[in-house]
Amino acid sequence: MQAAGGVRSLAFDSKAKLHLANGEAIAPLTMAFETYGSLNSERSNAVLVCHGLNGDQFVASPNPVTGRPAWWPRIVGPGKPIDTNRFFVVCANVLGGAMGTTGPASTAQDGQPYGLRLPPIAISDMVRAQCMLVEALEVETLFLAIGAGFGGMQALQWASAYPNRVFACVTIASAARQSAHNIALMELGRQAIMADPDWRQGGYLAHGVRPQKGGAVARMAACIAGQPASRVRASFDQARALERFTFAPDSSAEGIERIDANSFLYVSRAIDAFDLAADFGGSLANAFTNSATRHGVFAFSSDWRYPPHDSRTIVRALMAAGAEASFVEIKTESGHDAYLGEEPAFEAALTGFVDSAAAARGLALQGGKS
Amino acid sequence: MQAAGGVRSLAFDSKAKLHLANGEAIAPLTMAFETYGSLNSERSNAVLVCHGLNGDQFVASPNPVTGRPAWWPRIVGPGKPIDTNRFFVVCANVLGGAMGTTGPASTAQDGQPYGLRLPPIAISDMVRAQCMLVEALEVETLFLAIGAGFGGMQALQWASAYPNRVFACVTIASAARQSAHNIALMELGRQAIMADPDWRQGGYLAHGVRPQKGGAVARMAACIAGQPASRVRASFDQARALERFTFAPDSSAEGIERIDANSFLYVSRAIDAFDLAADFGGSLANAFTNSATRHGVFAFSSDWRYPPHDSRTIVRALMAAGAEASFVEIKTESGHDAYLGEEPAFEAALTGFVDSAAAARGLALQGGKS
Repeated sequence: MQAAGGVRSLAFDSKAKLHLANGEAIAPLTMAFETYGSLNSERSNAVLVCHGLNGDQFVASPNPVTGRPAWWPRIVGPGKPIDTNRFFVVCANVLGGAMGTTGPASTAQDGQPYGLRLPPIAISDMVRAQCMLVEALEVETLFLAIGAGFGGMQALQWASAYPNRVFACVTIASAARQSAHNIALMELGRQAIMADPDWRQGGYLAHGVRPQKGGAVARMAACIAGQPASRVRASFDQARALERFTFAPDSSAEGIERIDANSFLYVSRAIDAFDLAADFGGSLANAFTNSATRHGVFAFSSDWRYPPHDSRTIVRALMAAGAEASFVEIKTESGHDAYLGEEPAFEAALTGFVDSAAAARGLALQGGKS
Repeated sequence: MQAAGGVRSLAFDSKAKLHLANGEAIAPLTMAFETYGSLNSERSNAVLVCHGLNGDQFVASPNPVTGRPAWWPRIVGPGKPIDTNRFFVVCANVLGGAMGTTGPASTAQDGQPYGLRLPPIAISDMVRAQCMLVEALEVETLFLAIGAGFGGMQALQWASAYPNRVFACVTIASAARQSAHNIALMELGRQAIMADPDWRQGGYLAHGVRPQKGGAVARMAACIAGQPASRVRASFDQARALERFTFAPDSSAEGIERIDANSFLYVSRAIDAFDLAADFGGSLANAFTNSATRHGVFAFSSDWRYPPHDSRTIVRALMAAGAEASFVEIKTESGHDAYLGEEPAFEAALTGFVDSAAAARGLALQGGKS
């Protein structure tokens, strides 16, 4: 276990290869992660939080590298819906990320950054890497896998790939398949990065530069769909009214950290390629057969990145598979990013799901520290 | 009437100012246009075709500048649904365009290109300019205003602004208001252009360069949503499978001409700002009160740029306004761009609407040449 600059990470032995969906393998694998709370003696209270494209492993504490505050403080922490006094919360930087986990900015065995030499990554690969980490933490079965958006895709992949190792799964404002309009937005972001002379065909780190202009467009692509449709129009109209063609690339990406450009390329492509049903003959229900996992699916009425329709598709498949599933659509004007904000109805519904699952899991309401 | 390089245009007198929605004015105004067929003695057979973002005035003949073939040959021409043996067809390059009509690439009165000094343009301004052209061609009332997508927005604006000067209006795969996902795609395209060093703050023409990389992303933004959702995923997956991060910016923009970057900025913003109801207290129905125009609204089932829902919104407003409206949703897998391809059901329905309107207008089925 290493800790560099306040970033905890686990470097796996080179023999512990991570086998990728495309047939290649990554070794050695490093997983950077953060934990909150304590694993109980029965090792039955572990919660894996899967972060989104703009997130990192610092779900409930400040990022020591960027100084960015915890990204999900309303949901994860002492006394929160995911109570760190009660659960052992693990959050890992995704494979392909840039916050310590193996990614395009990591050093390859030749001492140079991987850059574009890193093999293409799938969400199933990210989850397989998380599974290696969870095992290393001596957790055999997760009490809960939870995520929103891209994080929800990871949680769904967990429930599908490891049906007996996920007691409960919470999928928030997500989808089992990336939609065309999301792919289009992401692809434009990728093209903007690759069109930036400072991208240097992916070798910008070696040149000591960063494709900041292209990256700004990519950040915008990554978060514009997170806003409610009404605000997209409003911020556009406002920017248009203020001055001519000075709409700052960041104006729709306020508060979002700089994403490593190559990480954006890898991770966004993994998201765009996600199609859980495709691995099961086109039947999403088949992705959940014989699953004992209980699912909580949450959607926000004004989310146009992953509209409630996408969540209903997941719920229908779960029902068809005979899985236990509950669905809650929260009426809100906050769009996709509502999961990050103050949404009492959402927090209440999530708390209800988590508590009932915990009771079914035999987890006491109080304590949990071992 | 001038003809430069095979491009016909009409240069208005400087006194004939084009007054813009933002309070400014443009003078002198030049409108580049093409005509097909002949105006009959009653001047009752004029059809105005409004082109889209990637179109131009050469709806039924090759573009003499680019060599690009006619862009709507299946719909406009001898014996076609819009029969040039029967109708006098006018198609003008939109205000802000780059094919001869006054736009950012045009020379301002100081002898330099307008560039970003051209005032912001609204679709209502484009239509007002078209109206000046139509009057100059001695057409008082259009038999038909027709367009698809952005062109449909212009046709709708015509019917709303000049209810007594448009006998019939055909709106294809369009909307009365630009949606957030379209704004997002266009804004990313704009940002990519402005992030390209060769954009030179809009002054690329004076520097003898063009923001080709940013422009490629913008072209992609302009046409990726025109493809069916299934093909967006397919072309993405294919490109992903072929090689790593070499998805050509043009791969989703095949066959689309280079758009002048500044024209894209101006025209795309006019499209994104379009909200017909906003000019009528938020009530779209009020945009069509006391209109004698008969409307034909067409939508394509797989269009995700302007889904059938957008067309139904238009139809509901027309009905509420007591206007005569027919609506046809064509089942197709070709997405938004279906209007350009071989869609027998669409062509039959369009022919039916045009013929019945022509009969009501008292236009003989044969001839029409004066």
